Amino acid sequence: MDKKYIELIRTVPDFPVKGINFFDWMPVMGCPDALSLLIDDMLELVKGGNFTKVAALESRGYLLGLPMAERLGIGFVPVRKQGKLPGKCLRQEYLLEYGSDAIEIQEDAIRNDDRVLIVDDLLATGGTMNAANELIARITPNITDAFFIELTDIGGGQKLKYPYCSLLKMEEK
Amino acid sequence: MDKKYIELIRTVPDFPVKGINFFDWMPVMGCPDALSLLIDDMLELVKGGNFTKVAALESRGYLLGLPMAERLGIGFVPVRKQGKLPGKCLRQEYLLEYGSDAIEIQEDAIRNDDRVLIVDDLLATGGTMNAANELIARITPNITDAFFIELTDIGGGQKLKYPYCSLLKMEEK
Repeated sequence: MDKKYIELIRTVPDFPVKGINFFDWMPVMGCPDALSLLIDDMLELVKGGNFTKVAALESRGYLLGLPMAERLGIGFVPVRKQGKLPGKCLRQEYLLEYGSDAIEIQEDAIRNDDRVLIVDDLLATGGTMNAANELIARITPNITDAFFIELTDIGGGQKLKYPYCSLLKMEEK
Repeated sequence: MDKKYIELIRTVPDFPVKGINFFDWMPVMGCPDALSLLIDDMLELVKGGNFTKVAALESRGYLLGLPMAERLGIGFVPVRKQGKLPGKCLRQEYLLEYGSDAIEIQEDAIRNDDRVLIVDDLLATGGTMNAANELIARITPNITDAFFIELTDIGGGQKLKYPYCSLLKMEEK
């Protein structure tokens, strides 16, 4: 039998653009038991990593990364789009289909002896996660990526340069 | 003696624009004990409200609202900028200093018998929270707003049309 958080995932056709099937797991957020089980399973997936920080990608990544950091009893590092974080930041640009974007972390949020788990909800092309890896790798090389859902037919996992794991493997098409 | 989460707040001058003193509480996120105490105190502030959902404003509001929802054992509703949420959404526009913006929730995220706590980190002008209140009031009138920091000299609290509470009162100037 499927777990409750899997049953709650729904497919939204043509979002955010025509031709894309979007896997919407937001209903899990409305169901505390399902969210709790999802966080359990995400933590089981990454156990033994001896992490000292959880970083997560704005903003759906927060919804998983923050409860994971809390249960592990370690600090949480928000990775935000450029210009959102105050004070001294490190910035990493990355290419989009058209143009480019950039993400940032606060300079003092991670130390060079940290072991960082970077969390996002979805692995598609891996573009943003690659940028987050490069950004955090300037401080520490001890990086592992974790995703709730991996779209295996897009092949983003092959482009990631650090160890990664994903809880659910799905196909977009 | 000040609580640890208060000690960790730092002032960043001229962010996001010249002349604004920004109270940066992100260091609390790096310190699990301080965050846990902050969540305790936020929950103490709103106790007795008998809430059935926590909604929070993207994305710093998530950092407080999500742990609060977890501890209360109730669902979490992300309030996002327009175009970010899949499926059927309710949208509320609001005015900015120049131009306008809009926020959305998924249509089925809140029911008409829900009692909703809406969380954000900072009360300044109250513009976004007013929009969130109007948005959620289309579904249920049972709304309370909670903030970590209220900038009392800006007076946003007087513009809010629902009960609100704030943990720390500070002056921006």
